[in-house]
Amino acid sequence: MIQVSEALTIVAENSSKMPSQIIAVGKALGYVLAETVYSPIAMPPFRQSAMDGYAFRHSIKHQYDVVSISQAGDHSNVKLKENEAIRIFTGAFVPDDADTVVMQEHVMANENSILIAKMPEQFANVRAKGEQINKNGIVFEANTLITPAAIGFLACLGITEITVYKKPKVAILVTGNELVKPGKKLPKGKIYESNSVMLQAALQTIGVNKAKVFKVKDNLKATKKALKNILEKYDVVLISGGISVGDYDFVKEALLKNGVEELFYKINQKPGKPMFFGSKKETLVFALPGNPASSLTNFYVYVYPAIRNRMGFSDIHLPKLARKLNAGISNSSGKTLFLKALYNETHVTVLDSQSSAMLNTFATANCLLIVPNDVENLKKEQLVTLLPID
Amino acid sequence: MIQVSEALTIVAENSSKMPSQIIAVGKALGYVLAETVYSPIAMPPFRQSAMDGYAFRHSIKHQYDVVSISQAGDHSNVKLKENEAIRIFTGAFVPDDADTVVMQEHVMANENSILIAKMPEQFANVRAKGEQINKNGIVFEANTLITPAAIGFLACLGITEITVYKKPKVAILVTGNELVKPGKKLPKGKIYESNSVMLQAALQTIGVNKAKVFKVKDNLKATKKALKNILEKYDVVLISGGISVGDYDFVKEALLKNGVEELFYKINQKPGKPMFFGSKKETLVFALPGNPASSLTNFYVYVYPAIRNRMGFSDIHLPKLARKLNAGISNSSGKTLFLKALYNETHVTVLDSQSSAMLNTFATANCLLIVPNDVENLKKEQLVTLLPID
Repeated sequence: MIQVSEALTIVAENSSKMPSQIIAVGKALGYVLAETVYSPIAMPPFRQSAMDGYAFRHSIKHQYDVVSISQAGDHSNVKLKENEAIRIFTGAFVPDDADTVVMQEHVMANENSILIAKMPEQFANVRAKGEQINKNGIVFEANTLITPAAIGFLACLGITEITVYKKPKVAILVTGNELVKPGKKLPKGKIYESNSVMLQAALQTIGVNKAKVFKVKDNLKATKKALKNILEKYDVVLISGGISVGDYDFVKEALLKNGVEELFYKINQKPGKPMFFGSKKETLVFALPGNPASSLTNFYVYVYPAIRNRMGFSDIHLPKLARKLNAGISNSSGKTLFLKALYNETHVTVLDSQSSAMLNTFATANCLLIVPNDVENLKKEQLVTLLPID
Repeated sequence: MIQVSEALTIVAENSSKMPSQIIAVGKALGYVLAETVYSPIAMPPFRQSAMDGYAFRHSIKHQYDVVSISQAGDHSNVKLKENEAIRIFTGAFVPDDADTVVMQEHVMANENSILIAKMPEQFANVRAKGEQINKNGIVFEANTLITPAAIGFLACLGITEITVYKKPKVAILVTGNELVKPGKKLPKGKIYESNSVMLQAALQTIGVNKAKVFKVKDNLKATKKALKNILEKYDVVLISGGISVGDYDFVKEALLKNGVEELFYKINQKPGKPMFFGSKKETLVFALPGNPASSLTNFYVYVYPAIRNRMGFSDIHLPKLARKLNAGISNSSGKTLFLKALYNETHVTVLDSQSSAMLNTFATANCLLIVPNDVENLKKEQLVTLLPID
């Protein structure tokens, strides 16, 4: 049995980055760049007006004849004399002979001439060519996360494809003869299988939308056979149920027989102790506890950073927040506790009913409060660390 | 021109909840319940062992004959005499004659009998029937957000469908003769159209995955015609470009001629001032500024809460965080500023290059720092309010 901190280190060290792929910019939200992107053009590509107004060559004159017009999309390089200006709109091309744009609110305009009431400084309201980026300049370094703003910036440079780290293909293997599919009648002694849809939804929150679910009978042969195929085709395998000290658990044996290397088994924590983590080549295997709340806890603590690491994220873990306790906590277990809790701007309250079987508490919680294994008492108003899951 | 706070109020008051729909639990992540959900079964559905161990009737005896076995999924109500126990596993049915489970680690086991080395308290390690919820008990109240844990809890009660608020159908209408599709050659004077993919990505972050993009020429007839169809079929319409004081902007006229009621036009803020907000029946129309950074700012500030309101969320706005300033800010504009900035656990730094055309700054930022219109100076280390966008 190892400590939480060791388990986290082993997970991070063994989850390698996925290979890269080329993807359309419009589909790249939530991916991480695998290569630095350079700009094919300068942005703006020409000197642009930042305002609706009039472009002219700055001087001491206040009166100008309006000789032409430039609207967005135009590219007529009108020649301007000293006393001439053109009508111009936001985003439009500024002719080479002009160096300044005056806002339309600051002029008195007649049919063919303007009088500038408030003279702007020279070069005002003109965006220089390449002000945002020059041709061949670095748009984004490798390992940048693609956000909506990043997509906008890439698109405005005319970039349609980028190279990102692939998202891992994830399989969820469910074992357990006691499990019945929701929607069917529940025979006595059985329970509904809920971990697969729960884990699929949890994976969706980190952008893995198509996790595939496999179900097998609780026996060594069926489990071994299912795992053989899955290990060849998937990058991350989550197994639900089947890892505890029960006599009827075949999963660990099936994993080892399939060449999965055990990296750890059992963590000194509550809930979520009976977890197996291993790998075969680049494929990661998490055999999660069967109890739904334990399973989801370990998803957030271990699977989440492993998948984010594979996707190329720099910050792989859930962010840690510090809040003050609304009531004291004691921990005589010697284990690290992950308590379902509710935090607000300043404080955090531990919820009742922490049993590892209780998903309803989890559905109410917005964070997991961490009590380290070597801390026996936390006092009211003491600062504690929590992982937000909202 | 109205203040930001008034604009926010008008948006919230005019964005009605969408109609409800029935949806499969496995597809309900990110939806909000439109109806309270009641449990069709008790959970657990029977008295369940919380441990791998032995079930027996609690007494002063320490030695028991092991007469049967109950593994998860079994439902054999074995009769037990006073000195008899059964082998039992986590999640398995506890026979009526037993009231306590002892962990296997706390017994010495022979082939057919056990000696309890550490006697548990009566009722220990037995989960009562209905401990989590009774039959017909409230699973979730209406207006609960469906999280991975909520999906797990619903599924474990055998619930396969729930009633949620629909997500709005969103259309993005792009106007502008100066715009060229990324991937094509850029003629002089033109720029690439980037707002549509950017807004699609921003919508994806709130779970609206299929926003449809329409492009029209910069003239009244084309805009009017396109809007007529869009207003009939969509719940939220985002228009990019075409709302400013430029002579070549037909959007506002096309909206009013299509029966859209103006709720406000122009907000006392920077960037993002030239925005139109209106409605026709339940459909909301946001004509966003054409500048990409202004457009995205107003998406986060106004469109985000409007869509969350339509989806049934209780907290409709981005959360507000308080951080200390790394450097002073002055605001002589009399406008509310939304500054692209980077925050960490304690502080926030305003980024250079705040121009409304500059998306690269937005792509680097992880928050928008709010400087209220009536605040002229903010000092270093002063607490400020920001909207996280990471």
